[in-house]
Amino acid sequence: MSERLESQMRFLGEVERLKTVYRQNKTVDGSRYENSAEHSWHVALMAIVLIEHADNSSLDLSKIVTMLLLHDLVEIYAGDTWAYDSEALQDQEVRERDAAQRVFSLLPADQAERFQALWKEFEARDTPEGSFAAAIDALQPLSNHLQSATTENGYEPLEESRVLERKRHIGLSSQALWETAQQIVKASTARGLYR
Amino acid sequence: MSERLESQMRFLGEVERLKTVYRQNKTVDGSRYENSAEHSWHVALMAIVLIEHADNSSLDLSKIVTMLLLHDLVEIYAGDTWAYDSEALQDQEVRERDAAQRVFSLLPADQAERFQALWKEFEARDTPEGSFAAAIDALQPLSNHLQSATTENGYEPLEESRVLERKRHIGLSSQALWETAQQIVKASTARGLYR
Repeated sequence: MSERLESQMRFLGEVERLKTVYRQNKTVDGSRYENSAEHSWHVALMAIVLIEHADNSSLDLSKIVTMLLLHDLVEIYAGDTWAYDSEALQDQEVRERDAAQRVFSLLPADQAERFQALWKEFEARDTPEGSFAAAIDALQPLSNHLQSATTENGYEPLEESRVLERKRHIGLSSQALWETAQQIVKASTARGLYR
Repeated sequence: MSERLESQMRFLGEVERLKTVYRQNKTVDGSRYENSAEHSWHVALMAIVLIEHADNSSLDLSKIVTMLLLHDLVEIYAGDTWAYDSEALQDQEVRERDAAQRVFSLLPADQAERFQALWKEFEARDTPEGSFAAAIDALQPLSNHLQSATTENGYEPLEESRVLERKRHIGLSSQALWETAQQIVKASTARGLYR
């Protein structure tokens, strides 16, 4: 095996660990918490199905899909930070930047650089692709939450307005998906998942 | 929400169930069986990292990634069929064909047709993209198995020759990955995972 292929296989072995990073949402049968690897699969598939609803019709879908497949890899070392955990959010940026450096540097330099750049673009949301990928990443937990209808994660139901505020950026890349997100939030509130 | 978007969201909700279809392999911490959603994430990422090792240098990567993201959706209804379960393999084709019809028909007709065609192409392995996607799908459980080193799934260790026979098709699209696969199998045998 060439040194290059060897380092790629080492990276691909290390990322196995994303399957053991758990989120606040549950699987739809309620049996366990969702992990960041299956979440990443779900959002990548969502982007492919929903790309036509982006307001910008000339997005690079394969870039978006790649971003979504690697957007959570930093959690292998930094853990999953819940979007409503104000304390953990404070040092999230530093923790994740170090983690990105660590995980991507397992790859050959050219791929490490490319993945690192894609991850930064996703985080910054300042390109059309980064913005749409972030919208999809924000939409998935809403529909999962309504479907699995769990309020048992030890937290009080969140305020609806706080959820909407946090998800408002969906509208920056897709008016249709932002309307969908708002409908899901309202249906969730009606079921007691938000207050 | 338009009727089209509504049916897309229904499909994307239904596929949540892939997270609850479990395979014979375990997660690397040994805590549970791997599910087909996180497996699909892993192979999609593997394809992106390893595409340069395909013998054919003009493959359509985004087609391969899409194939891998949807290749196991049939398991929502047909279950995961273990590659070495001779009995279940007998009616696998019929069960999965019906399941493909059922899951993809949740989508708008144009997307249903496109996904159905990609799934068939993956299964047939008779195009360069289908063949490479199948090679990646065959490689991932080998490296996962060696890494998680589990022999506790209730089966006797398989014969090494049977595993190699089953994985030989990897060499049809990538000599380098086929050599890698053989090295992983030999290392696994040395650890008692095959006999």
